[in-house]
Amino acid sequence: MNINFSDRALRIKASEIRELLKLTDQPEIISFAGGLPAAELFPLEQIAKSANEVILTQGDKALQYSATDGYLPLRKAILEQRLNKVGIQSSVDEIMITSGSQQALEFTGKLFINEGDSIIVESPTYLGALNAFLVYDPKFREVRMDDKGMVMEDLERMLEEDSNVKFIYTIPDFQNPSGVTMSVGRRKKLLEIAKKYDLLIVEDSPYSELAFDCECLPPIKSFDTEGRVIHLGTYSKTFTPGLRIGWIVANPTILNKFIMIKQGADLQSSTIDQRIAANFMENNNLDDHIKTIIEVYRARRNVMFAAMDKYFPAGIKYTKSSGGLFTWVEFREDIDTKDLLAEALKENVAFVPGGSFFANGGHPNYARMNYSCMSEDQIEEGMKRLGKVIEKFYR
Amino acid sequence: MNINFSDRALRIKASEIRELLKLTDQPEIISFAGGLPAAELFPLEQIAKSANEVILTQGDKALQYSATDGYLPLRKAILEQRLNKVGIQSSVDEIMITSGSQQALEFTGKLFINEGDSIIVESPTYLGALNAFLVYDPKFREVRMDDKGMVMEDLERMLEEDSNVKFIYTIPDFQNPSGVTMSVGRRKKLLEIAKKYDLLIVEDSPYSELAFDCECLPPIKSFDTEGRVIHLGTYSKTFTPGLRIGWIVANPTILNKFIMIKQGADLQSSTIDQRIAANFMENNNLDDHIKTIIEVYRARRNVMFAAMDKYFPAGIKYTKSSGGLFTWVEFREDIDTKDLLAEALKENVAFVPGGSFFANGGHPNYARMNYSCMSEDQIEEGMKRLGKVIEKFYR
Repeated sequence: MNINFSDRALRIKASEIRELLKLTDQPEIISFAGGLPAAELFPLEQIAKSANEVILTQGDKALQYSATDGYLPLRKAILEQRLNKVGIQSSVDEIMITSGSQQALEFTGKLFINEGDSIIVESPTYLGALNAFLVYDPKFREVRMDDKGMVMEDLERMLEEDSNVKFIYTIPDFQNPSGVTMSVGRRKKLLEIAKKYDLLIVEDSPYSELAFDCECLPPIKSFDTEGRVIHLGTYSKTFTPGLRIGWIVANPTILNKFIMIKQGADLQSSTIDQRIAANFMENNNLDDHIKTIIEVYRARRNVMFAAMDKYFPAGIKYTKSSGGLFTWVEFREDIDTKDLLAEALKENVAFVPGGSFFANGGHPNYARMNYSCMSEDQIEEGMKRLGKVIEKFYR
Repeated sequence: MNINFSDRALRIKASEIRELLKLTDQPEIISFAGGLPAAELFPLEQIAKSANEVILTQGDKALQYSATDGYLPLRKAILEQRLNKVGIQSSVDEIMITSGSQQALEFTGKLFINEGDSIIVESPTYLGALNAFLVYDPKFREVRMDDKGMVMEDLERMLEEDSNVKFIYTIPDFQNPSGVTMSVGRRKKLLEIAKKYDLLIVEDSPYSELAFDCECLPPIKSFDTEGRVIHLGTYSKTFTPGLRIGWIVANPTILNKFIMIKQGADLQSSTIDQRIAANFMENNNLDDHIKTIIEVYRARRNVMFAAMDKYFPAGIKYTKSSGGLFTWVEFREDIDTKDLLAEALKENVAFVPGGSFFANGGHPNYARMNYSCMSEDQIEEGMKRLGKVIEKFYR
């Protein structure tokens, strides 16, 4: 039997790293590989209360089909409780609910990318965004980052050369994987450049509220007076990822197309998930919960940084992330972190080799480390073991 | 500001009928337009119990990220409680969970259709499938149906002419919109033809368990010894659509690609929705619930048929659906049911004009009527009003 997949399906390849990391589900593994929030912090009793109330008092609606753009009270809550606070003054007609941010990324690819179009991404950038865009066969143009985010001179040079760019994709806060935050100056500059070249910006903000050492910076969308920024958010890191709740904020012309795409893609996100989230937001203060998360993650990050300083050979650099879930480690140029991972797994420690986060490959000497979902003791122990493995490579 | 959508996004057009039907949410409207299950039958207390148990006793897992292919106990329950019973003997590695059947349709388009490929669809067929496939720009080849389903001679003639067909899409049971069920003979014949031309069959079975007057017929997948049939199912019509639970059964080569596509599309379906459904299946008998639904829907269908016979002008034909949610009405050839809908809405009655269900347009003299979500009194009253409107057109 002959199976004729589409060309785009043939572009999707199984990842060897994913295969390796499948092993990391086992409880004996100390894993810095995932991007999981700390499950022990989920406010279970309050969520159970919301679920019960929603099912028993609104069940005929909460378990029925519902609107493609999302549950109105939830959209209002996201706007009022989250977006307005950081200066995004969009109306409720400019927000739609997605099944997590990943879906918003896939829709973005579908909505804008023709085969061969260029899109600008940070170097490195979120692997899941690359996968979402890849099926639509763009040319990935990577822009170098420094400790203030995307380097604007490099971006402009690229835009001078390439007139076929569809959008600029950025994760300005505590970037995945690099841990870098884009400065306010750069945010404004990026918007200015986007205006000059008449481009859209896709601003992906899953981690923006998890600021450990500083106030949250204003999102690029908050400076946007033209509807040029498509802003993506999610409750996956600040509330729970098991309820799949993300959102897109975009100007009505663009949002309307997103809604039509969602109609064809899955009709709507889970009605009950949306109503549970809305009920929770109404009856609880999410900001208090976020404060708790921040306390725990800050302490874990501190343990990780101190352990790297203690156990890793000299000369290894890492991002002093001031929030979010990740730090990004740079090893000596001759080190391939895939080999490092293979050895680390023998000691029951896992992380993600950095190469996969570069749109066009290369850069084998990086690694992404997550500090949100292991205990302080596990982090200390895991880094100690990892330090020993690394030492062998540095001999 | 210039917004450059992709070519595929430009193919998605707002539907004028959808705009008209937006009005039908209002409570004074008697709507035969939707495809909604009867919300008053949802087993709310049992679902609330499952939700409570899942959140309070497995919350750290139930609210966390989870596997792309779906929650294993749910996949097992679907196989054992539903699919094995109708003769589908697939293993648990051949099933994945989707966010409703709509997502499975979109993934199918993504996985197989290159621009310009032909796909075979029934004439008429499910509008949502057409929308899901449309973005990937296929040539839709429509095969005529009679009261036993797709006409096999027409199908073979088409396949002789067109060597670029990717798959055959069929809804064999109580088809949406026509209400027609494919005979067992035709099911076997269809598989034989698919073998002869080395094609895949996409079997969409959302309604198969809602058989009012007969036993369920064996799905095409139950005759499939080669992995040539991709079988799609859902709990949306038999349990609740608000929990977004659908599934794909396919041979491992194909399923593996579906999983990779889902990874990029939304990572996973709602963890909590899947665990609530699995807990419900474990602690309740879904078959008993389906029996209740069938009783109610059968009675409503009978009222609708009797009311059409009583209030509609002579000569109007409709499908004597023996299950599912819809009947399909054929008016005189000069009638445009879009005009009929505009007049019916003035009397607060709605239905879906049939033209949208034909992949390549035409056939304005049909209408789809749903009988699952209005009470018997509403159906009687709605049909009475509709009869008066139709009479004006028949004068």
